Amino acid sequence: MADDALFEFLHMEIVAHVYKEQATREDIDKERVTCVSTLELMGFRVGQGLIERFTKDCPTFKEDLDIMKFLCKDLWSTIFRKQIDNLRTNHQGTYVLQDNKFALLTQFSTGKQYLEEAPKYLAFSCGLIRGALSNLGLESVVTAEVSLMPSCKFQVVIQKL
Amino acid sequence: MADDALFEFLHMEIVAHVYKEQATREDIDKERVTCVSTLELMGFRVGQGLIERFTKDCPTFKEDLDIMKFLCKDLWSTIFRKQIDNLRTNHQGTYVLQDNKFALLTQFSTGKQYLEEAPKYLAFSCGLIRGALSNLGLESVVTAEVSLMPSCKFQVVIQKL
Repeated sequence: MADDALFEFLHMEIVAHVYKEQATREDIDKERVTCVSTLELMGFRVGQGLIERFTKDCPTFKEDLDIMKFLCKDLWSTIFRKQIDNLRTNHQGTYVLQDNKFALLTQFSTGKQYLEEAPKYLAFSCGLIRGALSNLGLESVVTAEVSLMPSCKFQVVIQKL
Repeated sequence: MADDALFEFLHMEIVAHVYKEQATREDIDKERVTCVSTLELMGFRVGQGLIERFTKDCPTFKEDLDIMKFLCKDLWSTIFRKQIDNLRTNHQGTYVLQDNKFALLTQFSTGKQYLEEAPKYLAFSCGLIRGALSNLGLESVVTAEVSLMPSCKFQVVIQKL
């Protein structure tokens, strides 16, 4: 339905806008890094806001793994209309979330043709995860990796304080 | 639920980003106009994309009024979770759509205190309406007016070719 399309279109606009705006500036060297971190930060704040509303009436979580499961099931379904397909952990604070058909990559041809475009479209979501976790008390570093569109792996490394 | 919050948070981020980015540039005079038109244009493209998906399996519309009714009921509910409360027309191509509790203004205190902030948060939606109508064959000029938050009136003037 048009429902999820709203988020997808809006996301595309943001990515396009952030990259276009940078292109008109002078420091082209820093371009990529800046765009990715701008998008990541937007995602971070949206993730913070969402999780706050979303867990308003939830019991608190006992373990980090419970938080990750909640994120993979409940939060992911709300935002991306499907659950994470596979969650792995080394039980030492590193989690790998695999989405075999990631919503924000489905507009691309499948395969390897547009792989170098992928980071643009993953930065916001990395931030989203980091923001959600942050509001649940977990500081983390989140990166994403695509080897074959539209499948995507997010790696979350929890930062022990 | 977190569902509509996603759009609201994302919208807030976009508005904040567009204004912040302009603030760091030199030509501050043009600031307001540029930000509003940037947001309007983003809304336009999102509106175009949404209506295309949304009317994929719809019968074509007979009259302009049917298009406006569709927009006020179906499209508005999908995006803003409620219908337009009141639709008026002079039957000469001007339509006034009144939303008594416009989703993107509900975060503000009600009343007149933040009235001057309103245009920031309406530009995207004006573009959304214009984009949707444009894809249904109607070129229009869309403006918005707020006299008391969170109520809002959108004026649509169809441009006869």
